[in-house]
Order: sequence, then structure tokens, then C-alpha cells
Amino acid sequence: MKTEEKEKTTDLDFERLRQLMNTNKIQVFKKELLNLHFYDQGQFFISLDSTGRKKMTKLLSPKEMGDMFDTLPDEEQDTQDFLQEMEPEYAANMLSEMYNDNAADILEHLDDKVSEVYLDLMPERDANKIRRLMHYGVDTAGGIMTTDMISLKPDTTIMDAIAKIKRDADLAETVNYLYVTNYERTLIGVISLREILVAPADALVQDVMTEKVISVHPEIDQSDVAQTIRDYGFLAVPVIDSQERLIGMVTVDDIIEVIDDEAQSDYSGLAGVNVDDVSEMPLTATMKRLPWLITLLFLGMLTATLINHFDVLLNEASILAVFISLITGTAGNAGTQSLAVAVRRLALSDDEQPSMMKMIISEVITGLLIGILTGVTVMVLVGLWKQNFILGAVIGLSMATAIWVANMAGSLIPLGMDKLGFDPAVASGPFISTLSDLTSVLIYFNIASLLMSSFL
Amino acid sequence: MKTEEKEKTTDLDFERLRQLMNTNKIQVFKKELLNLHFYDQGQFFISLDSTGRKKMTKLLSPKEMGDMFDTLPDEEQDTQDFLQEMEPEYAANMLSEMYNDNAADILEHLDDKVSEVYLDLMPERDANKIRRLMHYGVDTAGGIMTTDMISLKPDTTIMDAIAKIKRDADLAETVNYLYVTNYERTLIGVISLREILVAPADALVQDVMTEKVISVHPEIDQSDVAQTIRDYGFLAVPVIDSQERLIGMVTVDDIIEVIDDEAQSDYSGLAGVNVDDVSEMPLTATMKRLPWLITLLFLGMLTATLINHFDVLLNEASILAVFISLITGTAGNAGTQSLAVAVRRLALSDDEQPSMMKMIISEVITGLLIGILTGVTVMVLVGLWKQNFILGAVIGLSMATAIWVANMAGSLIPLGMDKLGFDPAVASGPFISTLSDLTSVLIYFNIASLLMSSFL
Repeated sequence: MKTEEKEKTTDLDFERLRQLMNTNKIQVFKKELLNLHFYDQGQFFISLDSTGRKKMTKLLSPKEMGDMFDTLPDEEQDTQDFLQEMEPEYAANMLSEMYNDNAADILEHLDDKVSEVYLDLMPERDANKIRRLMHYGVDTAGGIMTTDMISLKPDTTIMDAIAKIKRDADLAETVNYLYVTNYERTLIGVISLREILVAPADALVQDVMTEKVISVHPEIDQSDVAQTIRDYGFLAVPVIDSQERLIGMVTVDDIIEVIDDEAQSDYSGLAGVNVDDVSEMPLTATMKRLPWLITLLFLGMLTATLINHFDVLLNEASILAVFISLITGTAGNAGTQSLAVAVRRLALSDDEQPSMMKMIISEVITGLLIGILTGVTVMVLVGLWKQNFILGAVIGLSMATAIWVANMAGSLIPLGMDKLGFDPAVASGPFISTLSDLTSVLIYFNIASLLMSSFL
Repeated sequence: MKTEEKEKTTDLDFERLRQLMNTNKIQVFKKELLNLHFYDQGQFFISLDSTGRKKMTKLLSPKEMGDMFDTLPDEEQDTQDFLQEMEPEYAANMLSEMYNDNAADILEHLDDKVSEVYLDLMPERDANKIRRLMHYGVDTAGGIMTTDMISLKPDTTIMDAIAKIKRDADLAETVNYLYVTNYERTLIGVISLREILVAPADALVQDVMTEKVISVHPEIDQSDVAQTIRDYGFLAVPVIDSQERLIGMVTVDDIIEVIDDEAQSDYSGLAGVNVDDVSEMPLTATMKRLPWLITLLFLGMLTATLINHFDVLLNEASILAVFISLITGTAGNAGTQSLAVAVRRLALSDDEQPSMMKMIISEVITGLLIGILTGVTVMVLVGLWKQNFILGAVIGLSMATAIWVANMAGSLIPLGMDKLGFDPAVASGPFISTLSDLTSVLIYFNIASLLMSSFL
């Protein structure tokens, strides 16, 4: 109830703002708008049409617009449109006023030519900082770090440090941690704003700082940075180059996005559909789901030709057709389960991961156990139903083998893909279950034709 | 490469620590251990056997042990074991030294009787705070909030505020935000540590603070709190009761865990297996995956009896058996996709969600489009292959209808469960695809028997 009330108030605020804007009460409008949180300002901006947005751009300074853009979600197409609605000089100014990691994110998604135009229009110092960030891979620590930060020298007094923070706080994305570097720019310590506040004014930074700093290198994967920040409960982690020089920091807000995105992509992988955009437009939804379905349809056709190959057998024993979907379905389910576990296990950081050999042996045994237990169950069920325990044994044996194979496919395919450097999450659930249809049918009909004489 | 090097150093540290402990160089051991980050101390503690852990407990004060326990992951069984290895008084002291949200989390997972023992042994003030937290639902803002915080009064000077922060910083989980309350304890503002540092010493808190505070109520779902913190880029959000009095705050580190857990549970749901614990013990893994598999096996048996019901038809036209797995498999894939999209859509906060009617209409049309396009494709493929376009039409029509139905099941079942108050994520992918095996076979054989005379 309470959240709904809150939402309604926000809606009302937006309605009022829109009226103020349309009736040209510009000064009141501007004052009330800037009174909102940056995030809400951004949500209002997004809710406008192109004319409204242009009007707002005229009204706000590049700095005010930049604060707002820092909170906008990363929808590439939208941001491109917004930039194109602005004068190039204005857009460039706004980008240089933003936190430079966010500006780099936006520019990375633009055409190289377009982003160069903006960079050329910016103050050179800002442009160079952003260019340096754009040069790291988007999924690495370097790609998500900011260089808008304050660092301190070890022989500074706490009083002078406070003066420096007061002076430069506006330029930094966060001042909750201050990193300490020596005169070679090597990272030698960290001190929190809380420690600075509590320390005596005449103490030296080096006497208060913590010397053991956990840091990351710019080329490591963003999910490993997320793991570090999560494990230690940090609000930020410093990034150092190969000479241990401080080059940036990754803050917790960027990490939350990383965790969300990775979860989304694992989930999308398992489902065989990109769930990033849950648009309710049927045509868009169709276009997103169809490619996988049609691709797998061809794999399914292969299974059909395989069954067709056994038409003589099927003609003689049409009872076999009764159990096709039971065997393929159950094996597919087992394959999906083991796929999910394997992908999740591979997402763990290296030191938490069991060794490759251990994983393989474990999955081989698990698949065998699951296969045998399920196979025995189905053997009894079919034997009782058809009063034919030899038929039951054929179905049970086929089921056990099919599950075992599907289970191994579900765990070994992502494992192999990971070792080859692909994202294991792209082996989707639908792919594994369609593949296991093929292997299950192959196993089933071969076992059946071997033992046919005994159960007919 | 670099991360591996880091890990190795940590391993070496642990080896060295273990040696120091075993050779009874107790003072060196204690010094080096406490030099580590709390998280690493905790990891070392976990890596020990029961004897080692007891030795460590003897060596560390309850406060030192509490700092370490604050970083331990939430594995219920382990934490219970650790507590039982301690003297009850020591354990109670340690719990009262921990951040009270973490202590409440641990106690909530214990037997009521056991947790009462610990609470009775604690200082009453701490016990009461923890009891109050335990009374909120574990998945709500109240369940994850902390009450270890500093609040300020509006007429305090910045200088006095700094003095208060210096004095109480140790008791608070974070001092990055200080919330301002009036003398009725009503939340009236927020001020960041950075703003305090930058403000003139003689200014009043009320002149520097931001008056528009985004807050949450204790009973709202933790995922909505996560959304708020994420959207606004906050490091914490205050929790207020129905009279707008400040009762606690939720910090970003707890939110990261919430986001991770929710993603995990959506993923587990889709896979039909709990991927929380990726243990490599085959027996444990089997026991976790088997219940779903066996349950679905019975649903699969229903499909088998259905096919059996059509045995006369199958005897006359064994060609029909060739396409069973193609139709059930493809429909199952479509169902899994729409399930994933539906679950994800339902996870959005209410104001981002399209209306129920809109979602249903959209899915009906999407399913129809996907069904028709896939059906036409398969009709052409089968027609060409078998040189029989009437057979192709039967398969295509069955496929289109089966996909349409599976698609609706995948989206409407979670939607219905959500409306009935269940977690939509428990409708697993394997369940939807096994259910769609049943409906697909029903559709396929009915269409085939209606049109049989024309294609044979």
C-alpha cells in the first residue's frame, strides 16, 4: 500500500511539472525540477516527448543535465536519440560534466565518428581521460572504473587532507574512501572518510591509513570485481596497473549493475531467449524468440529422421511410440537441471571452483545415480501397467541411459565451452533438451531393437 | 593471471597461519591474523576443523570474533555448528558485538529455544534491539535493516555533529549518511558525511541537510528496497514506521545479497533445481534433483497413457510416431521461453509492469505469431521431405496449435500464481515443458485422427 502511495505522489509531481512547463512558468518549473533527486529528474526527462526534452535542454545547464544523465539507465538507442536532439557543443559539455565512467559508457555505444566529434568538442583534459577509459574492454574492471577520485599523499596531515577533500569533493564520484599513493603514484594505503573525521587534526595520513589494500587490475573481469566488493563488503575497490600505480576505482553502484546484468544473462541463456527487454509488443517478442526456436527445429527434424529410420521396428511394435515423449521429456529435464548447476558453478570465482576433473567425475556419478533411480521407477510403473516386465526393463534401461547422457551433455557442454573461452551460459536449456531428444531416441530405439524379440 | 597470483598469496598466508597456530606461536599468530581483513579472517576460520576453530575462539575476544562473523556467508548449518562449539556466554557476547541485523539473521535460523538462551545471556539493551528486528519478516525491509546508526537533531551545529560522530562511529554500521530526526523522532532530513565535512563548523544541521528523503516502510518487500537503492544510486535508505518515525536503515551491502539471492531463486525456478549449493557430492546432488524429476515422470506417464489411447491410429499410421518428439520438443521450448519472460516481467516493480489484461492479450498474439511462423516452416520441411503436403499440413497445424497452447501455459500459469500470492518462479521450465508434452500430444493426435483419411 505504502509504496503505491509513494508512486502516486511521484506521478502527481510529474503531472504538475508538465503543466508548469507547458504554461511557460519556466522559473517555477526549473526550481521544482531541480529540487527532485537526479534520478527522478531523469525519469521525468524520459517521460517527455522530443519537443519537451528540447525545451528542458534549453533550460538546464550542461552540468545540471549531466547530473541527470549520470542516473539514466543504459538503453543505448534512447541515449543516442537524446544526444542527437542537443546542439553538439551542449552535448559535449554535458558529457564532460558527467562522471567520466558514465560518459565513456555512452560514447562507447556510439559510432566511432560521432563519438570523436563529441570528444573533439570537449576540454582536452576530460577528453583524454574518457579516451583512456574507452580503451578498456567494457566487461573489465577498467571498463567500469572511474578516474574521478581524490588521492592523498602519506605525509599530508589530516587537517590538510580535510582541506583537500573540501576543495575537490565535487570532482570525485565518492570520497568515502581516499586512496593513498606515494610520489611514484604507487598505491600504498587506504583511509576512509570516517577515519579521517575521527583522527586527530595533526596526525599524518600514513599513521591513520590501512596499509593492506585489496585492489584489482584493469583487465580482470567485472564479475570478479563484483565478487571482491561483495565478499569484503566494500563500497569501492581501487584499480592498479602492472606497476601497482593507482589508475582508478570501481564503486559499488556500478557493481550492482554488473550483478544484475550477469544474473539476467545467465537466466536468458537458460531460457533460450533474451529477457533483457520484456516489451509487450507481440511482433518484437516474436522476433526475439523465433531464431532459437527455428534453429532448434532443424535439430528436432534430425531426431524425426532418426525415428523415421526405425520405421520397420515401429511398424512391428507400435507400443514403442507410446514411450517416446516420456523418455525424451524426462532426459531433457535432467539435462536442464545439470546445465543450470554447471553454469552456476562456472560462474563462481576460480578459487571457489572445484577442479575440472572433480566436476566431471562428480557429474558422471550423479547422472548415473539419477538415471538408475529414475529408470527403476519407470521400469516398475511400465511393468505393472502393461503387465510386461521385459518391456518395462527396455523402457527403464533406455531411460536410465538417456538420462545419464543428457546429464553429461548438460554439464560437459558448458564446461567445454568455458574452457574454450566462450560464455557457458549460451548453451541454453532448450538447446540441451532438444539435443537430448536426439540422443534419447538413438538410445531408446537401439536398445529396443536389440531386445525386441524378447518383449513382443 | 593477476587474480590467480593474488589467490595464491592468500593460500600461502593461510598455510603460514596454520603453521603458526599448530606450533603454538600464539602471539605472532594472533597479530598476523588480526592484520587480515575481517573477511579473510572469516575465510581462515571456516577453513579450519573443529579443534582449530575452538583454539581460535579461546584466543580472540567476542568483539574480534563478532567482526569476523559479520562477514560470514549465511550458511545456516555451518553457523549453528560454529555457535555450538563456543561457550554459550561467549557466543551471546559475540552476537551482541555483531551488527544487530546480522545477529538477528543468525538467531532467526536457530531453534526458538536456543536463540532465547543466547538472547537471555546478552545485555538486555542489545537483546531487545535484536528481538525487535527478528519480529519482521525475513524478506522485508524490516528484516534486513540495521538499527546500529547515528541520527542527528536539526538544531545541532556541524561542529557538535562531528563530535557526536567521532564518539559514536564505532557503534554505527555506516556513517556515510546521517539521518536527521526532530524531537518526535520523525525523519525530516538526511545529510552525508561529505556534506558535513564540507560545511562551515558553525552551520546548523538543518541548514545543510536535504529535506526530501526517500524512505521505505519496514513491511515492504526487500526486492523493492533493492530497486530503490539501485535506481537512486544510494548507499543506504532509511526505514520509517507508519508515523514517519525513523526506526532503522538498510545498507547497500545487504542489498547486494538480496539481488543475488533473488536472481538465484529465479534461476533455480526456471531450471527446476535449487542451484543455491553447487556441492559436487553426487549423492547430495541426486537428492536435490530427483524429487522434481520423479514428480514430472508421473505427468509424463499421463502423456504416455494418452498416446497409448491412440494405439489404433498409431498402428494404421506409424509415420505419426516420427513427429511426436519434434512437436512436443518445439512446443516445450516455446513454453520455456514465454515462462522466462513472464517470470521476469512479474519481478518488475508494480509501476513498471504492464496491466494484466495487456500482458494476456500480448502473450496470446505472440503465441499465435510464433505458432504460425514455426508451423508454416515445419509444414514446408515435412511436405518436401515426405513429398506429402497434406501430412505436412497436419504436422504444421498441430505444431502451431501446440506452440500456441504451450506459450499461453508458460505465461498464464506464472501470472495466475502471482495473482494467487505464490512466487511465480516456482513454475519451473521442466514443469511447463512436461505439461506441454501432454497438451501437444493431445492436440497432435486429435488433429491427425480428424484428418487421417486425407493424408494416408
